[in-house]
This record gives sequence, C-alpha cells and structure tokens, in this order.
Amino acid sequence: MKHYLTTDDIENLPKTIADAIALKQAPYKFEQLGKHKTLGMLFFNSSLRTRLSTQKAAMQLGMQVMVMNFSGEAWSLEFEDGSVMNGSTSEHIREAAAVISQYCDIIAVRAFPTLTDKQKDENEYVLKSFQKYASVPIINMESATGHPLQALTDAITITEQRTREKPKVVLSWAPHPKALPHAVANSFTSIMQKMDADFVITHPEGYELNPEVTGDTPIIYNQDEALKDADFVYVKSWSSYRDYGKVLHTDPNWRITADKMALTNNGKFMHCLPVRRNIIVDDAVLDSPQSIVIPQANNRTFAAQVVLKQILESI
Amino acid sequence: MKHYLTTDDIENLPKTIADAIALKQAPYKFEQLGKHKTLGMLFFNSSLRTRLSTQKAAMQLGMQVMVMNFSGEAWSLEFEDGSVMNGSTSEHIREAAAVISQYCDIIAVRAFPTLTDKQKDENEYVLKSFQKYASVPIINMESATGHPLQALTDAITITEQRTREKPKVVLSWAPHPKALPHAVANSFTSIMQKMDADFVITHPEGYELNPEVTGDTPIIYNQDEALKDADFVYVKSWSSYRDYGKVLHTDPNWRITADKMALTNNGKFMHCLPVRRNIIVDDAVLDSPQSIVIPQANNRTFAAQVVLKQILESI
Amino acid sequence: MKHYLTTDDIENLPKTIADAIALKQAPYKFEQLGKHKTLGMLFFNSSLRTRLSTQKAAMQLGMQVMVMNFSGEAWSLEFEDGSVMNGSTSEHIREAAAVISQYCDIIAVRAFPTLTDKQKDENEYVLKSFQKYASVPIINMESATGHPLQALTDAITITEQRTREKPKVVLSWAPHPKALPHAVANSFTSIMQKMDADFVITHPEGYELNPEVTGDTPIIYNQDEALKDADFVYVKSWSSYRDYGKVLHTDPNWRITADKMALTNNGKFMHCLPVRRNIIVDDAVLDSPQSIVIPQANNRTFAAQVVLKQILESI
Repeated sequence: MKHYLTTDDIENLPKTIADAIALKQAPYKFEQLGKHKTLGMLFFNSSLRTRLSTQKAAMQLGMQVMVMNFSGEAWSLEFEDGSVMNGSTSEHIREAAAVISQYCDIIAVRAFPTLTDKQKDENEYVLKSFQKYASVPIINMESATGHPLQALTDAITITEQRTREKPKVVLSWAPHPKALPHAVANSFTSIMQKMDADFVITHPEGYELNPEVTGDTPIIYNQDEALKDADFVYVKSWSSYRDYGKVLHTDPNWRITADKMALTNNGKFMHCLPVRRNIIVDDAVLDSPQSIVIPQANNRTFAAQVVLKQILESI
Repeated sequence: MKHYLTTDDIENLPKTIADAIALKQAPYKFEQLGKHKTLGMLFFNSSLRTRLSTQKAAMQLGMQVMVMNFSGEAWSLEFEDGSVMNGSTSEHIREAAAVISQYCDIIAVRAFPTLTDKQKDENEYVLKSFQKYASVPIINMESATGHPLQALTDAITITEQRTREKPKVVLSWAPHPKALPHAVANSFTSIMQKMDADFVITHPEGYELNPEVTGDTPIIYNQDEALKDADFVYVKSWSSYRDYGKVLHTDPNWRITADKMALTNNGKFMHCLPVRRNIIVDDAVLDSPQSIVIPQANNRTFAAQVVLKQILESI
Repeated sequence: MKHYLTTDDIENLPKTIADAIALKQAPYKFEQLGKHKTLGMLFFNSSLRTRLSTQKAAMQLGMQVMVMNFSGEAWSLEFEDGSVMNGSTSEHIREAAAVISQYCDIIAVRAFPTLTDKQKDENEYVLKSFQKYASVPIINMESATGHPLQALTDAITITEQRTREKPKVVLSWAPHPKALPHAVANSFTSIMQKMDADFVITHPEGYELNPEVTGDTPIIYNQDEALKDADFVYVKSWSSYRDYGKVLHTDPNWRITADKMALTNNGKFMHCLPVRRNIIVDDAVLDSPQSIVIPQANNRTFAAQVVLKQILESI
C-alpha cells in the first residue's frame, strides 16, 4: 500500500481484514517493523478515537509518533496555487507538506469538509494537496468526503460478528441538530460494496448521498421496510448532499428505537461514535446487548495498525 | 491498588512512602513493568506539574503515554444519564470512557469542580463517571474534591524532611483573588489524618472545609496561635465551602510572612504550586531556605510513579 | 556545550557543522546517548519546523520528549521580580523553571518578542529567566532576539551547498504585511560573521538591524547591487528596529523575483519558512531549482541533534 486515502487503496480486502484480526491477538508481533520510523499525525479538527487508536497502533508497531494540532499549535496553511499571501495564511501547503515529509516517514491527516463549498470538498483540497506535495505516504484520518480507517474498522467488525455468510447490512440516516459530513457514510458505502453483503441504504427523500458513491446500492425511503431482517444496522447522520451541507429536517421518527431494532434479524447496532444519545438512538438500544459500538471502536486500533503495517512494508 | 481516586485507596501508607523514596534512587528499576502498557492522560483543565511529573513517572516505568486535552482536541462530553443530547455536548461519558479503556491500560483524569454546583462537585460526576464506565484503572489527577497525587507527594516530603517523629503540621488558608477549589486542602487533610503528625488547620471563620473531611482535626481561627512550634506550614487558598465557591474576603493578614514563619519551630514552608507571590506568601519566605516547595514538587514524579507501579502490579 | 542560547555558544563551528552532516548519514548512531534522558519542549508561540525537527532530533538520540504549549495547557507565567501577583499570572518563572528542571534533563523554550517593549525584548526576559532559574541546560527554540537553531541550520546548508570556498551570501529584507521579529536575521548575521563568507546585508533605509549585531557587516541599500554575484540569497522580513516593531512600509520592489535572481551567480534562494508566497518571493523562484528551502528545513533536525548531542555529552 502506497497511501491510504480511500478504501480503494486496499488491495486485498479479505486478507487485510484477516490480518487485522490476527494483529488483535498479537499486537506487538511486528514491533520491529516500525523501529526508527516516525508517524506524523496532523489534525485540522477534533478527534478522540482516531487520535488515540492511530497513535496506539503506531506505537504497537514500534513507531515514534508526533502529534500536531494545526489550530493553536502551528501556522495556518494556504492551499490555493498562485495566491498572493497577504491575508491570514502564513504558510503554503507546498512547503508544509514537503518539510513535514522530511521529519516523518508517514503523515496522517484529518481535515473535515467546509460543507459550504461543494467543489472544494469534492476536490479534497487538503488531503490531495498533502498527497501532491508530500514525499511520503499519506493516511486519511477523515477527510472532506471519506473516512476509510473507520470503514475498514466496520468491515472488520462485521466480519467478526456476522452469523451468516452474506449478512443484511442497512445504513440508516439519523436526525442530528448539526450539519454533519458525508465522509463516514460514503466510506462505509464503498467498503460494503466490496463485501459479500446484502447492503441497502435508507434515508428520507432529499438526503441522497453522492450518486457516484452509492452507485447501484438500493436506496429505500421507508426505514421500517429497510430494517426488516437486517443483521447490522449502521446508523449515521449526514447533511444534504444535493442542497449541499444543509439540514433539511431532523425528523425524530428516524431515531433508532427498540421497536425499530425489533424489526431486524436480532440485528447489531453500529455507529462510528461520537453519538448523541436519544437523538440518533435511544439509550435502550445503545445500552442493550444488540449494540456493538464499543468493540467496533476497539477495532479502530487494528484497522489503523494493518494500514500502517502495509505501508511500512512498502517503504 | 485498583484505582487511585482518593488517599483512601492507599492500602499501606508507610510502605507506599518508603517505596516512593526508593524509586527516587532508582527511577528506571521497574522499566520492564510498564512495557507495552499505555497510560492515557485526559485533561479537562490546565496542568504543569501534574502533566509533566505523571508523564515522566509513566515513562520511567517503561509505559507509553498518550496525552489529550479535552478542550480543543476532543469532543465535549455529556455526563447526565438519560439526557436528550441536542445541545452542545457531542459524546456521552458512557461511550468515551468505555472506548478509551480499549486504547489505554490506565486512564488518568483531571477535572476541576464547577464551584457553583455543590452537589455535582461532591458527587465527583466526572471522575466517578470515568470509574463507572471505564474498564481499566482510573487515576485522579485532581478532581472536584480531591488531589490525592499531591497529598501523597506531601506525605513523602514530610516523611523525608521531618526532624522529629511526630512533627507539628499546620494547614493554613491564604488569601487569593480567585475562588479556588478545596481539592488540595481536602486531600492534604485526609492524608495527614493517616500520618503520625500533630495536625491542625487554621483559617478565618467562614472558610471551614467540608466537616466530613476535617472530622476531629482541630481548627484554630487564630493563625499566629496555630503556627506556634510548627514544623511544617502547608499553605493553600480555597473558597468558602459553606457559601459554596464564594470568596468571602481576601484578608492580607493571612499571607505568610517572615514574621509568621518566625513563630514556628524553624518550620518548613510547603505549597502545592502554582503560588501567587506576595499574595499567598512573601518573596522573603519563598526564597528562604525554609521553603521546600521545589523538592516537594520533585516528589510529584515519585508519588505518581509509586501509584502507577502499584496499579501495574495489580493488572 | 552548557546552554544553547545564541550562536556564540557554539565552541567550534566547523566541527559542529561537520558533526551535523555526519549525523545525517547515521541519525541513530548515538541512540544510547539520550537513554533515560528527557527533553522538555516549552512553547509560548506557534511552531511547525522547530517543534517537529527538535522532537525528531531528540528521539533519534534516544531521548524521551514532553511537549507543552503554555497557552492553553499550562498556567500563565509571571516574569517580574517582586511583583504582587494579584493579576492574570498564576505562577512565577522562579518556581516554574526550577520545577520543570526536576522533570527534564534539558529544557527547550520558544518565546517570541513583544515587539512593543524594546528593552524587555533585548533583555530576553523569558529565555534569560529560564536560564537563571532552571538547573538544567536551556535551548533557545527562537527567542525575542535570536533563533540560533535556525542559524546553525543555515550554516550547515551553506557549507553543504557552496560551490566556492568563500561564497557571497546576501541577507535581503523582504516586505510582509505583519511586523515580524528580528530573531532570524540577527542569528543569521551572527553566524555568517563566523563563517568564511563574503557576507552583506541589504534592506531599505530605516530597516537597519541592531548595530551591535551587524557590527562591521556591509549594509547596502541598493538590493540589485547587493545581489550581484551572490551565491546565496537569504531572504527574511523584519520590522524596524529603530522605530521598534513598526512596519515602515512594505515596498513590493523588495520581493525576490526571477529577474532579481538573474543578477546572482546562479544563487541559491534560502528562507527559514514559513514564507508568504508572492509577497516575500515569487512562485517562479520558490518552485525553481535555485530554491533550497526544503533541504534547508531538513537540516533543522541535524542542527538540533548536534546541539542536543553536545549538551548531552556535557551533562
């Protein structure tokens, strides 16, 4: 693996999942692999799971880790080519990425979308600029349009927890007071399309994801119908893609309740976290044995670790 | 030791103090004990000594350390059970604590009191929530009502520096422009009650600490009388407990001066730091040989290290 | 080396440069030297290169690193002696420096100038206070009046890239929308005065640096004349020293363009970064083979490492 920007960078998904599950049993087995190698973790946005699990994964591979929060610690970056930098930005990504590449063997970046400038977000101007101007591998720790470490985590979790070979997996939109990115939903959709799963998406009309991402995946506007016989219910809020970045409504009927879980095939509840309780999902579901959000979050470490391992093996 | 939430979690205080003093002579002796173990240090408030000394202590035990400042780096947490999370909090402590437990072998938490909601503070809602929902040991790096790492530090320091077997120790209130927590005073009182010491507290009327903490400890409203023959003068400001979180007055006569130190038995001046010079204590005292605040701060490392060691030995 | 506060602390510059270049070939050769030693990196201001390169350098020497950003993480410090601390500062440098010295074997500090109080800046009140009250070696990671790690980097870079024994080196002022410190220009001047170089400074009238720093170094007010036959063009903006901290003007004619570079002896373009593109220098220069800002930034690691190594060898 050269970079890990999208789930498409995974060359062999079943083997990658199997390797991640194996790492869980022996997390320090490859501690020599990362010796004298440094991971630079660059955050343009907040993080809890991604920060801690990726740092942990790197340390388990024997790597050194340097964490930098750009807001507060470093200079504000310019991403426009040819700009006359007489404004608020102090350093161009061309220099920043090239320089950091000399201090780090791998660079991991988190940069959320604007949710106001669709084209800028779709172009992944932060992530792609790092890829373009860095001379080392780049890992996407959630970008404008994707969160592939989360998606790999989810694929590992479903593989571990499925009770039939081709489980039914439902991605269900949820209401949320804030406009949220499409990244998690996009990457989950992409990786489910690569899995042996009966995968459907359900959301209210108007909340369609980017059609280039959803492709042939069935979209069902009736949540109850979609949940029928589901083995996994993956819940996530996102803002409108068509009316870009807008919250069209926050219909509480889309919240996951115990009654809705009763429609499933004793389905497992999944969420990438953080999750707003009693807005996205009821306490009764989250605190029930059907919820697997905690072991799902645990797999973040091993998703990151298998990605780091594959990149380290290639450099 | 399972957790270190209060000084009551110390099973054998004399042995713990002796072990800490021994660690000072050979700080890396137990470097194998923490191998492949991770300490997560979570800060909801500022820190200098606690942050650096605890991190140092963990590294001396061979541990890996991940530091996270919740304000600025991570999501704001919800602590209320059953709340409908449509406000400013993004993640419930139930998930946060359970998730972080999977990335860290021990979690250390700093969370100051509100000083406005007495019941919330007394319930230690942050610390106790971590204890309840985490699956790993929790260390208190100063909570709403206690600072047991500081108290253990103080007990070590007094043990090292005492010149008679049962020293006279005075906890003396000091004026301060801001309303300060009771945590340091509470924990110091609790640990002194466990030591072989002639321990008294002195403060102006109205500044009584929680009577459940002070118990039978003599309270003397006349500072000069209290200081007489003292071997150790432990100074700290705190806000009113009865008129909760209020600064009743900042009587400068309670400031520690050279004249006041002259009343003692060549007493040692102690303070947990940070200390406001010429408000809490005069330069003349702080810069005199009677002040032991610097070696006291040095013991923070070994207090943290002996606690980490005892917890590591139990997991 | 006891401290590294200014370039004058380098005892043998040619040997130090040669050692740094040797470290580049074998960065982990002295990994045992820093074992069980801790570097504390204290930031009062933002940093990208300095933070990452110094941390990397320390790790390559086997050191443990603790990073602390004072704004946001720790207490605000008081530097005035004798002050009655009833204002916004919570801790005096006397305690802070003495305490941190007990947790760290070396302390590195970044503290920019006020640019409003010339005397305070010239006195280097932050850096000198750390030196005065700390009991361990201090490294200057850019202070009010100097940036000696950058200067050593520059000396290494010029040594590596020069094509004649005594190259012509020009320090050229550049326009910038903000009032910038003199630190980089001062330290570069000082170290060039110690090198075998034909060194000149060029800037508009009114932008003279501290005459105690420039000494006998020729100052040429005509930029074109200064650039003639230059092997290295070192560009940097700074505010007025005489009219302290003021931006007198931002004459765009001083920006480095391809035409200006054409006046040189196929000169190399250098800058400490971050650099504002098309304000300080044109894209055409920065993206040309004449620009060596990226390998220059890479040398930051080895400048920091050779300094840390010399200090470690002395303690």
